[in-house]
Amino acid sequence: MKKSFEITASDSHSAARTGIIHTAHGPIHTPAFAPVASQGAVKALPHSMVKNLGAQLILVNSYHLYLRPGIKIIKKFGGIHSFISWPSPILSDSGGFQIYSLTPLARIKNDGVEFSSHLDGNKIFFSPENIIQIQQDLGTDIMMLLDYLLPYPSSKKDIQEAVRVTTQWAKRSRIFLQKNPTSQLVWGICQGGIHWDLRRQSMDELMDIGFDGYALGGLGIGEPKTQFMEMVERSGSHLPKHQPRYLMGIGYIKDILRAVECGVDLFDCVLPTRNARNGTLFTSTGKIVIKNKKYEKDRRPIDKGCSCYTCKNFSRAYLRHLYERQEIGSAILNTIHNLHFYLDIFQKIRQSIQSNSLGQLKCSIINEKVEEE
Amino acid sequence: MKKSFEITASDSHSAARTGIIHTAHGPIHTPAFAPVASQGAVKALPHSMVKNLGAQLILVNSYHLYLRPGIKIIKKFGGIHSFISWPSPILSDSGGFQIYSLTPLARIKNDGVEFSSHLDGNKIFFSPENIIQIQQDLGTDIMMLLDYLLPYPSSKKDIQEAVRVTTQWAKRSRIFLQKNPTSQLVWGICQGGIHWDLRRQSMDELMDIGFDGYALGGLGIGEPKTQFMEMVERSGSHLPKHQPRYLMGIGYIKDILRAVECGVDLFDCVLPTRNARNGTLFTSTGKIVIKNKKYEKDRRPIDKGCSCYTCKNFSRAYLRHLYERQEIGSAILNTIHNLHFYLDIFQKIRQSIQSNSLGQLKCSIINEKVEEE
Repeated sequence: MKKSFEITASDSHSAARTGIIHTAHGPIHTPAFAPVASQGAVKALPHSMVKNLGAQLILVNSYHLYLRPGIKIIKKFGGIHSFISWPSPILSDSGGFQIYSLTPLARIKNDGVEFSSHLDGNKIFFSPENIIQIQQDLGTDIMMLLDYLLPYPSSKKDIQEAVRVTTQWAKRSRIFLQKNPTSQLVWGICQGGIHWDLRRQSMDELMDIGFDGYALGGLGIGEPKTQFMEMVERSGSHLPKHQPRYLMGIGYIKDILRAVECGVDLFDCVLPTRNARNGTLFTSTGKIVIKNKKYEKDRRPIDKGCSCYTCKNFSRAYLRHLYERQEIGSAILNTIHNLHFYLDIFQKIRQSIQSNSLGQLKCSIINEKVEEE
Repeated sequence: MKKSFEITASDSHSAARTGIIHTAHGPIHTPAFAPVASQGAVKALPHSMVKNLGAQLILVNSYHLYLRPGIKIIKKFGGIHSFISWPSPILSDSGGFQIYSLTPLARIKNDGVEFSSHLDGNKIFFSPENIIQIQQDLGTDIMMLLDYLLPYPSSKKDIQEAVRVTTQWAKRSRIFLQKNPTSQLVWGICQGGIHWDLRRQSMDELMDIGFDGYALGGLGIGEPKTQFMEMVERSGSHLPKHQPRYLMGIGYIKDILRAVECGVDLFDCVLPTRNARNGTLFTSTGKIVIKNKKYEKDRRPIDKGCSCYTCKNFSRAYLRHLYERQEIGSAILNTIHNLHFYLDIFQKIRQSIQSNSLGQLKCSIINEKVEEE
């Protein structure tokens, strides 16, 4: 474990905090949002725009990059930063989620997981060790351990087994890392579904082994919102305060705000970018589905208070026209707006924690009816 | 006719000249290249990037905009500049080319053309008068007359008839404009295929009526290159020297350079943007097809001498990866490069005419094996 995280301010009304994750490619000011760049590119935006919008880091996916273009090519370039020309922090997901969601017949063993490529059906075997090796070759700033994820709902017995395997793999990962040390940050992923005893057990076992940060995995996959929130709240109280916490794949602003109050530091989600391409745009007063005919002559920007390039320059009518014509520009302009919307909220979250006013920010955002669901 | 064009320098070895087309939305320094934005957006680039690459004007298409979103909506916005938020000059094509290429059963009459929408088969009638009305509603800086275009090859008799109809429509256009004056520039389109007598007749008849500029239409549609070039050369000598000339839809750099020597001032073509999306990239030493496996590990930029954002930041290997993954970023980065390549050559063309060195520029570009065909 490295001293990679420092807390810079704490909210007096909740467990929220601001902090800095120190990485080899610069600091990440938390709470932070990582735009998803599974293949090494945030969809529909050149890196320069992603940076200008305020993204501090991006998330790439080990599973996808392993399949194509292959780790050998990326290694030849000296790692993923150089291959994709992104000079700032990069987090790599282990691909656990993709293995189980894209390849339903994955076979779990004590030493890893066997599955068929979703592209060509070729048999692939991923072990905790080679997932680390892959991420060492990628040279990402934060790497995630291989975990065992079950869909919701699954039996408690199965989830218990998933926790056992996840811990087992975490132990093997630690042994591998002792033999193959790295300056990259290594974060564990806790499982346990919506069973607090199992989730606590998973956290305890990972904390015993010791990693640089802890992620909550296997949440936001269809379980009732109250149980989801209970897990986040109780996990926030249980995880070591001085290490960063990461709530994987969660993108609804209300959930993010509540999770921040529970002490979560890092988020990622495809929601802003995927919705942008589907023509669903976030505003301070609710969602807009830009293809709706009612926007055909609408001279207003997406969100009148928004300072993004799209809102400063283009009307809803023009954006609807681009969407209807299937112009690539539609994806670009919509992604600029949605990503700005997210990154701007995260900046406000950080500012409000530092000025001890997170509660007011949360009320104002929720009162403005940010309804994403 | 307005005094909209001034010549600022002339090449002593050819008919090439630099000039300025003065429009309501600013000057266009010629020879100029208009990126194609048929639907009101250059494909795969936000306007800000198109401007930063040095585009002085864009081309929109009356036919496409008439069909969708409809002229009524654009008029409501006060015109196309406001609707699409492009503050610089815009040229609108009349849609003649689209009518004949997209709707093969178009029926030509003395008072206009009847055809079926390529979208839903609905019957539409375009007259020379309403094509002008549409472009007055669009409020473009340069509007083009409705012309009658035939495919190559067509019989000389048919082309003679096309010239007759084109002239007839130009006369009706002039009468309409006398009743409905506009400060927009109005340019005629000469037809005549590869028959010099017909093409000269077409030019003479349009020049007799008198327009602000003259375009060469119906070229680059499959005729032999020598005959194409003969028409451009002889037309260049025949058209009034002090008015701008526009060679429509021509994009091969060699042809552009030769046409500039014949005194052509304006060009447009989908070639750089369409090729970009298809993964074909222009370089000073020839074309690159980025999907080729040989670029899989290629660390070099597309073109080592190029100063565009794509070349300054990304390797061929990464661009191949994005293309193969069908990432939208592939279209964006490739379009940046190809459009920069074109606009940069046009800047060099203008500079070389002003320094009386167009011949050297042409040799150096052609010796570097710019092979687009």
